[in-house]
Amino acid sequence: MIIPTSSASSVKRALVLGGAGFLGTHLVRALLASGVQVRSFERRKRDSAPDVASSLDVPLRVTPDDPRLEIVTGNFSTGEGIAKALEGVDLVYHLVSTTVPSTSNADPVADVEGNLLGALRLLNAMRAADVGRIVYVSSGGTVYGNPSTLPVPENHPLEPLCSYGVVKVAVENYLGMYAHLYGLTANVLRVSNPYGTHQHRIGVQGVIPTFFKKIAERTPIEIWGDGSVVRDYLHVKDVVSALLLAGARDRSGTFNIGSGVGHSINEVLEIVQRQTGLAADVRYLPQRKFDVERIYLDISHARAELGWEPLLGLEVGCAEYERALRLSGRAESSGGAR
Amino acid sequence: MIIPTSSASSVKRALVLGGAGFLGTHLVRALLASGVQVRSFERRKRDSAPDVASSLDVPLRVTPDDPRLEIVTGNFSTGEGIAKALEGVDLVYHLVSTTVPSTSNADPVADVEGNLLGALRLLNAMRAADVGRIVYVSSGGTVYGNPSTLPVPENHPLEPLCSYGVVKVAVENYLGMYAHLYGLTANVLRVSNPYGTHQHRIGVQGVIPTFFKKIAERTPIEIWGDGSVVRDYLHVKDVVSALLLAGARDRSGTFNIGSGVGHSINEVLEIVQRQTGLAADVRYLPQRKFDVERIYLDISHARAELGWEPLLGLEVGCAEYERALRLSGRAESSGGAR
Repeated sequence: MIIPTSSASSVKRALVLGGAGFLGTHLVRALLASGVQVRSFERRKRDSAPDVASSLDVPLRVTPDDPRLEIVTGNFSTGEGIAKALEGVDLVYHLVSTTVPSTSNADPVADVEGNLLGALRLLNAMRAADVGRIVYVSSGGTVYGNPSTLPVPENHPLEPLCSYGVVKVAVENYLGMYAHLYGLTANVLRVSNPYGTHQHRIGVQGVIPTFFKKIAERTPIEIWGDGSVVRDYLHVKDVVSALLLAGARDRSGTFNIGSGVGHSINEVLEIVQRQTGLAADVRYLPQRKFDVERIYLDISHARAELGWEPLLGLEVGCAEYERALRLSGRAESSGGAR
Repeated sequence: MIIPTSSASSVKRALVLGGAGFLGTHLVRALLASGVQVRSFERRKRDSAPDVASSLDVPLRVTPDDPRLEIVTGNFSTGEGIAKALEGVDLVYHLVSTTVPSTSNADPVADVEGNLLGALRLLNAMRAADVGRIVYVSSGGTVYGNPSTLPVPENHPLEPLCSYGVVKVAVENYLGMYAHLYGLTANVLRVSNPYGTHQHRIGVQGVIPTFFKKIAERTPIEIWGDGSVVRDYLHVKDVVSALLLAGARDRSGTFNIGSGVGHSINEVLEIVQRQTGLAADVRYLPQRKFDVERIYLDISHARAELGWEPLLGLEVGCAEYERALRLSGRAESSGGAR
């Protein structure tokens, strides 16, 4: 993993909203490894202390009770615990979402209440606490809708087909407005389809972990459509390096964060079969209308402005994921694929 | 006023949300004149029957108790009364806003709750009632932010600087999503700065009515900034003709609705002074950060696709407004100008 040597150099304590989630787990570790104090904001009390050292590739001299890591609990949607969590913080990572693309359309009102109003309350609390810097994880896969050009650049029209994407766009717009009006430094990362360990919502988000798990368990793999849908898959290590670079930035900006390359679901399945040496039992289901057909991101802006570069292609990234999975020796829970 | 002969030909009964407001008052009259039954959804019970015939330029054989006009009351934000108001309707005009640009930033949470959640509840109620057509009045002056090209076309990036604009964009995106997923016919009109009679929120919205009123009363006119701010002013008659054409449309679309020409506030003031023969007492106040500097709209898409054309330039429109004001003999309430 790239940990930029100057990363977050001016940041002493970062608040990670969603620190127990998929990206959050990896980000918290990387921040600690880069010498930043971390306050992780989580929804539930953990049963045990976080295992910050597990499956880490970077040297990390922290123990689970390291004073540099503080766990706080609260409710992002209602704002409960946010004001206290912001005390003494100079950077906020906002990684929380109460919905995923495939479920968000079932109740857009709840999506707006949980995610958009939550983000607005956070921004108001940041103003009150004089916390001036935020990195927001938006969605490269949903904000554009069905792109008219590929790879899709950041200035492509935003025409989301799911509530998840509509809310992401609205949060982005409020961040831009608060940056303009109140001097907030807001960096938006439109992350494509990230994959890696700790992706717990198997079957809801994350084709790659789902495929690896189901093929190992010899359970059927369900695919919406004929498998020709194209996505931009990005290994979590590459997401984390972008998050660190964005956190160290003194200006506001919006960046596509993807591999820059498109792969069909069927291609992903081939890779997983090849790497595991197992044949998948695939069931193709009718295509869903809110699924974007083909998307991959133009990442030239992040390359030029953030100095970021994704290092793990799909083949290498899948192998790396499979290795980390074996090392951690963990099984993950079951479901269907998207 | 242009009343397209074939306008809303397939529409029998239209629901006008905000029928007692500025645009709503004019739209209700025009719909009645074009032979459409109208249900006007209003927030408060009226003290008296609506005076549908006053200051009308088109022949209109309706009396205030005409059965073709039905007034219902309810609360758009909470959804109270919406389901009932949708019964038997084949077209919805959504003209409601609980905020204006200059006030929306004071409480974005309330803006989202009142306007975005209200719009989502409306869309869900329309699905439930099988009402498949809507015309939404969005905001040409705020959704783009500070445009990088002038006149600004519809595909310009949307970078609003006020909550009012952020919410308009979110509603537009939900309309697009419901059109894509559920077959809704949604036409979005990004209206520039409309002016005309019945613009009651003097001092909050509407430079032109404010200037005419204050200059006649010899009270000071307050202008935010040095008066160089450029806007696209559109007479309400031209807005109404666009609303009628959009309501008759069978496909979805998004259209800039403006004059296509920019005028500074100082130019507007000159026109008002010339037409009234009175000198204004002007006080220039500090510029506000959420005010867009210069904007006027590229209206070629509306010309080509809607067959719409604005007919009243600023000079003629102001004279027309002043004439209508004299005819109605009404004074309007006071405030400051924007």
